[in-house]
Amino acid sequence: MTAKWVYRYDEVDEAESVAGDWEGVRELLGGKGANLGEMTRLGIPVPPGFVVTTEACNAYGEAGGLTDELWSEIEKSMIDLEQRTGKTFGDPNRPLLVACRSGAKFSMPGMMDTVLDIGLNDDVIAAWTKVEGQERFALDSYRRLIQMFGSVVLGVDDEHFEHVMAAARARRGVDADADLTPDELRDVIAEMRAVVERRGSGPMPSEPMAQLRMAIEAVFESWGGKRARDYRNASGIPHDLGTAVNIVTMVFGNSGPNSATGVAMSRNATTGEHHIEGDYLINAQGEDVVAGIRPTSPIDQLADEMPDSYRQFADIADRLERHFGDMQDMEFTIEDGHLWLLQTRSGKRTAQAAVRIAVEMAEEGLITRDQALLRVQPAQIDFFLHPQFTADAKAATTVLATGLNVSPGAATGEIAFDADTAEAWSKDGRRVLLVRQETRPDDVHGMLASAGILTSKGGRTSHAALVARQFGKPAVVGAAELDVDTSARMLTVAGQELHEGDWVSIDGTTGEVFAGELATEVPDLEDEWLSKLMGWADEVRRLGVRANADYPEDARTARAYGAEGIGLCRTEHMFFQPERLPIMQRMIMAESDAERSAAVWELLPFQRKDFAGLFRAMTGLPVIIRLLDPPLHEFLPSFEELIRTSADLHLRLTHAPDLTAAEELTTELREASTTLERVEVLRESNPMLGLRGCRLGIRIPELTRMQTRAMIEATIEVAREGAAPKPKIMIPLACHANEIEVQRQVIDDEARRVMADEGMEVEYEVGTMIEVPRAALTAEEIAWHADFFSFGTNDLTQATMAMSRDDAEPSFLVHYVADDILPDNPFATLDRSGVGRLMGIAVEDARRIEPEMEIGICGEHGGDPRSIALCHELGFDYVSCSPYRVPIARLAAAHAVLVARPTGPR
Amino acid sequence: MTAKWVYRYDEVDEAESVAGDWEGVRELLGGKGANLGEMTRLGIPVPPGFVVTTEACNAYGEAGGLTDELWSEIEKSMIDLEQRTGKTFGDPNRPLLVACRSGAKFSMPGMMDTVLDIGLNDDVIAAWTKVEGQERFALDSYRRLIQMFGSVVLGVDDEHFEHVMAAARARRGVDADADLTPDELRDVIAEMRAVVERRGSGPMPSEPMAQLRMAIEAVFESWGGKRARDYRNASGIPHDLGTAVNIVTMVFGNSGPNSATGVAMSRNATTGEHHIEGDYLINAQGEDVVAGIRPTSPIDQLADEMPDSYRQFADIADRLERHFGDMQDMEFTIEDGHLWLLQTRSGKRTAQAAVRIAVEMAEEGLITRDQALLRVQPAQIDFFLHPQFTADAKAATTVLATGLNVSPGAATGEIAFDADTAEAWSKDGRRVLLVRQETRPDDVHGMLASAGILTSKGGRTSHAALVARQFGKPAVVGAAELDVDTSARMLTVAGQELHEGDWVSIDGTTGEVFAGELATEVPDLEDEWLSKLMGWADEVRRLGVRANADYPEDARTARAYGAEGIGLCRTEHMFFQPERLPIMQRMIMAESDAERSAAVWELLPFQRKDFAGLFRAMTGLPVIIRLLDPPLHEFLPSFEELIRTSADLHLRLTHAPDLTAAEELTTELREASTTLERVEVLRESNPMLGLRGCRLGIRIPELTRMQTRAMIEATIEVAREGAAPKPKIMIPLACHANEIEVQRQVIDDEARRVMADEGMEVEYEVGTMIEVPRAALTAEEIAWHADFFSFGTNDLTQATMAMSRDDAEPSFLVHYVADDILPDNPFATLDRSGVGRLMGIAVEDARRIEPEMEIGICGEHGGDPRSIALCHELGFDYVSCSPYRVPIARLAAAHAVLVARPTGPR
Repeated sequence: MTAKWVYRYDEVDEAESVAGDWEGVRELLGGKGANLGEMTRLGIPVPPGFVVTTEACNAYGEAGGLTDELWSEIEKSMIDLEQRTGKTFGDPNRPLLVACRSGAKFSMPGMMDTVLDIGLNDDVIAAWTKVEGQERFALDSYRRLIQMFGSVVLGVDDEHFEHVMAAARARRGVDADADLTPDELRDVIAEMRAVVERRGSGPMPSEPMAQLRMAIEAVFESWGGKRARDYRNASGIPHDLGTAVNIVTMVFGNSGPNSATGVAMSRNATTGEHHIEGDYLINAQGEDVVAGIRPTSPIDQLADEMPDSYRQFADIADRLERHFGDMQDMEFTIEDGHLWLLQTRSGKRTAQAAVRIAVEMAEEGLITRDQALLRVQPAQIDFFLHPQFTADAKAATTVLATGLNVSPGAATGEIAFDADTAEAWSKDGRRVLLVRQETRPDDVHGMLASAGILTSKGGRTSHAALVARQFGKPAVVGAAELDVDTSARMLTVAGQELHEGDWVSIDGTTGEVFAGELATEVPDLEDEWLSKLMGWADEVRRLGVRANADYPEDARTARAYGAEGIGLCRTEHMFFQPERLPIMQRMIMAESDAERSAAVWELLPFQRKDFAGLFRAMTGLPVIIRLLDPPLHEFLPSFEELIRTSADLHLRLTHAPDLTAAEELTTELREASTTLERVEVLRESNPMLGLRGCRLGIRIPELTRMQTRAMIEATIEVAREGAAPKPKIMIPLACHANEIEVQRQVIDDEARRVMADEGMEVEYEVGTMIEVPRAALTAEEIAWHADFFSFGTNDLTQATMAMSRDDAEPSFLVHYVADDILPDNPFATLDRSGVGRLMGIAVEDARRIEPEMEIGICGEHGGDPRSIALCHELGFDYVSCSPYRVPIARLAAAHAVLVARPTGPR
Repeated sequence: MTAKWVYRYDEVDEAESVAGDWEGVRELLGGKGANLGEMTRLGIPVPPGFVVTTEACNAYGEAGGLTDELWSEIEKSMIDLEQRTGKTFGDPNRPLLVACRSGAKFSMPGMMDTVLDIGLNDDVIAAWTKVEGQERFALDSYRRLIQMFGSVVLGVDDEHFEHVMAAARARRGVDADADLTPDELRDVIAEMRAVVERRGSGPMPSEPMAQLRMAIEAVFESWGGKRARDYRNASGIPHDLGTAVNIVTMVFGNSGPNSATGVAMSRNATTGEHHIEGDYLINAQGEDVVAGIRPTSPIDQLADEMPDSYRQFADIADRLERHFGDMQDMEFTIEDGHLWLLQTRSGKRTAQAAVRIAVEMAEEGLITRDQALLRVQPAQIDFFLHPQFTADAKAATTVLATGLNVSPGAATGEIAFDADTAEAWSKDGRRVLLVRQETRPDDVHGMLASAGILTSKGGRTSHAALVARQFGKPAVVGAAELDVDTSARMLTVAGQELHEGDWVSIDGTTGEVFAGELATEVPDLEDEWLSKLMGWADEVRRLGVRANADYPEDARTARAYGAEGIGLCRTEHMFFQPERLPIMQRMIMAESDAERSAAVWELLPFQRKDFAGLFRAMTGLPVIIRLLDPPLHEFLPSFEELIRTSADLHLRLTHAPDLTAAEELTTELREASTTLERVEVLRESNPMLGLRGCRLGIRIPELTRMQTRAMIEATIEVAREGAAPKPKIMIPLACHANEIEVQRQVIDDEARRVMADEGMEVEYEVGTMIEVPRAALTAEEIAWHADFFSFGTNDLTQATMAMSRDDAEPSFLVHYVADDILPDNPFATLDRSGVGRLMGIAVEDARRIEPEMEIGICGEHGGDPRSIALCHELGFDYVSCSPYRVPIARLAAAHAVLVARPTGPR
């Protein structure tokens, strides 16, 4: 069969029957060509023209040039076009002029774009300039052809042509090209010809068919060029798609005062409001609008200037929206009062606009609610949850430094170099930004008092990052360019000095740091369209969404954002609070069982209070509380610090000014040594794989006992208040069913005692984290002993890939992702074939034993849309994520349901 | 159906038809009763008697005592026994006397054992003492009954009875009980009665049936007693097996000079030589032989003293061996010239005897070769591979301290506290034992020069342990009781001081440390029976056996032990050698690519030489060489040490006596700071999960390139010598197929270049370790890129269980195993349901893609018999282990085949 390489815009029916469906048409004709064809089919005025298909592009690639067969088909199509337009290519009296535009399936920078006015040459110009009143227009068109052909086809850097234009304007003393006289344009044309001769890869042909051929070849060549290949590699676009070429009869927005050209969106791309937004220019060509050489007019004004054309355009915009079911981004030209559509495509929009447009289109009946849900990316919801710098503010400043964007949102405040200062200033009503090298648990009060957190060290799982995300505080960490000198109360960066009290701004969404106070705006989560969209998402999704929350305040935030319970409360964060840490340290350093026991039980009232607060905030909803998890040395000062302190004390002792000082130093040194000794005993070469999780609870059952008592006592206390606490106790880091059996015995035993003591029965469940590969592999055995499973995918990923996130991310993981050794950062998006397979094994095995087993996820992946999709596929009951990702997770969970039944445009 | 609670020894046919098979008979009648029945069936003289079954024991436990039904059956059996013996229980003229002996299926300490002479009382004794020449014998028997009944049934501590005997012997001034006169025995009897009255749990009945009933009850009670329960818990014997009770007519080895009693083995239990070995006493009862009160005579002597009985016994021993197909351990009594067998069972034996007996029995046709293989436990082979302390030497000393038994064998030598001293002394011909707190890579020359290694710190995977196992040097590490003061050249333990040059001995098989020079003996691996057995094992096994060897010397040892190739050569050990470490450190500390590159290529000649040596030693056999694996900081001084050094230098600087000294110290301090900085950059919070394995080779491809070049150049060099090198390059720590693809490209590329440079083509393979759970889970993808798989089960276990061996073993793993939370130490024996399942998944997936894929194991589990069985089941091609475990692995691999078709005794 001989392929058909060329389709006229009115042959889109035929293209569709060949390609099978609309998707196929877009592949065959490219996005631009397909939409021009579709508009033609709808009877919308599109200049006559045709598409050379993507298949022709591939054939060109294979043959290493245009084949005779293809060229002869193009020639025939040109003859056909001449007949349809009644004009002739190269005929000085009725010259046919065409534009040549590339158009792949996906819009792609790096490819040859457009050459207008093909068909002009000296002969045609000679005739055209003689037409009454068209001299200037003809010469300007010719100038454009030489400039575009020269730069796009013959590879001359465009700046050389711009120099010619600038010099001409300067000679004439005008600002606008339109103010150049015909003679001046003639000079320009001559100079541009000289530029092409000097710098072009070859001469510019005057024969129209030769011009056309070279333009088409240039498009096909650019598909295989380095820039386009790189772009496709980066965006995952297949190299064999090919690009189409559109050959369109020229229409002229620059043919006089009754002509115009413009671009417009069918709705406001920033706010989503439903009215046409755009810009136009009278007597100009399309690129003039984009180039911003002349100030454009807002599209509303067209209603006054050319009311018929505007009405016609508004009507077309509405039809196209209804037809394509999406906001349209259109190019148009009015030639002597006649409206032509040159392009239409789905318009880009802000997160806010995306939500409003999706919801309103669904309400207007243009799309279904499911389609509306799919129109908004879950990540876009993030916009509504954090303050943002205004576009103006960002545009007016430059980036001072960049760090890791660990907690999104914009924050601005006066620099405070320690937590106490931050807290004090905040109490005085000042807006503060805490700047540290890194933060430690005793900085938390200062972090809470600050508008945002900025550190020069630390990674995505550093203390600063974790706490910031937890509380939704914008944070940038590990901004290594910053030299933070806390003792000098000064921050140096790029030669600039910032002192305590100076203003600084950070964008936790991008990781950028700015000097000064940048204006912010706070999007509205109560946004009526967002609320509607989230409501629709909740109706669609099957996955529950819970939050990871450690404090009642978090829990309330989470509930406001739609969390249906707490999926993970990390009790260790409670132990880090200033009044508790010393007790915890006493417990760890205890030299006798009695001493240790005393310390453990001293923590009981604190824990009970914490838990009661959570139960109140989450009344009626499940609250999963994890038993103490981290290695004990995390609660002690760092080993290196202690060694340094000891060495320092030693040094000071040798210089002690008198006996009293020496004695004091000796006492200090002795204490430091004792601590050091204990810390050294607890040191582990790989703490992630050491004494932590339930291993701790098994070694010190009293810890489990105390935590259980606190939970059950809190449950009873809150139940007596009339609320409905639903406690679920979670055992961390289990690796063997026996561990759960043993810990469960301790829990059940203590719970029974509390109930007997209190004279009241309450319900509770005991479940386990699945975060050790062995636990996943033996889920069947574990299912006998656990009421619920929660996948701790941070640790599970770590062990399954034998990669510690803290160590891997800075040292090799970034390179792995950059070099495509790994498709994604597995700590951000679940590794489907490794970790995901393990999870699948566990779910299948557990449900074989216990079909109703509640299964969820509480790792950071619980807030990642692609990971949520995997959890949905695996049949999870819920995902749990940080409170500030709950709305994102709700939408992602709905998407997970909908991707099974896609509802694309058309 | 009414149960039958009692079986006569001549009713073993009936017992077998009830119990189904011989195993059932042993369960029903206990081991002792079943074998007495079997001997009866064979016509071997066994005193008449019967067994009260294990079912009766369980019924007793349920009913809380002897039921009437059971007791009446026992009464009937006694009447029957009276009729068969022509004697009557309690009849002063023809008294029937019986022994009551417990006998469970498995021999079990902690249970009531034996009461002899039941049926004696004052009336019977009165009559018996009147019989001509029997007065002493009768009184001695009565004394024994009171003593045994008192201690065993009535709970009197035996020492009280021994006091009575000792006092009587002292009064009389004799050494032997047999020298007491009848009157003195009467005094003894009276005193013993007084002891029973004062201390017994009740009076001793004189009525024979009451004596019998209480003895039977005591046996049944002792089954449920704490000691027996504890023993069963520890040995995994079910609690519901129950024990049987044997009621056997008394025969008397103490009835005069024509009587005797003894125990004998049918072969020598120490050497395995095929002749009867044992001891006997004329005119004595069995317990006299065991108690060692009188010196016994060797059994050979019986051939002279009682030639007929000896001949008869020898004949019976032979028949029993043939019948049971195993060496027998027998008890016999000769009463007035009449031989009775009182017990027979399989005899315990040394490793050496086990091998010889198994082989000879197979050659004699008593058992099959398969049975012979199963008679020797793989662990027993270890005996032949290492020197052992002589039993005498160990008996003559006491244990000074105990550490971890990380590398088996006995070693003795003069203490050297550093590697240089050890090496120097060794060159002087002295035998040295290196004693350190812990060892480091630069101690290796001293370790090699020593007979053994002893450290006070470190665990099973410490440097000392790894190197010691590697070279088969006996080693005890982590002997925490030792206070090693290297600077004082002194070792303190339990208040004792040992100085450099003092003798010390260690048993790496048990972890014991002794002061002084203990005598050792070296078993012979060239043992003819062992060679035969290993030959049979090789015929049976399906699994190949390779060795983990890093140096040509190891490789030769391994080959001598039967290794069929090298399963793992760890190239990093090569980098630790003194002349190379500085180059390696330069490579790591390099500040420019050029500097690093120079250092990398400086290592090439060393590596080529190492590899060539391995290829020569293993000509014709595969040699798997793993690319550099450990984190780079392992090659640098430790961070803590550097901090301490810096602090120290700082301190010394402040006290510098003059400017010159200060300048020198400043220079040193600056150098230390530079090193510290680099080490700090390389520090990882969890190095096991950090930058190591192929992650290193991907970050520094030149390392992989250099190692590949070294391997291929060495291959060509050795091939040109006429040998047959078979190199296999192994990529470590792969977690994603892409890693292997990327590294393989580098390897293939460099290999092609070397072959082009050398003008010679050689073959090589490229495979990967499977040691990251994700690699096992994605084995199907990985199989596309790898020629072979080798499971690194140390790391795989570590990651799958999220347990670092170094951290877990001392802190919680010991407790986990002790408390049965884990069935085994997963680092010693593969965790079947977790890690094993993962391995199964990987094997199945890989073989689906590549049915011929070579799959092996090179973790330490490769030398563990139970893990080898699992590898066999999973369809592995080979196991690889330390050279010193190769023979063990060969036998274990044969066992793995045979356990599918068991061939137990009978």
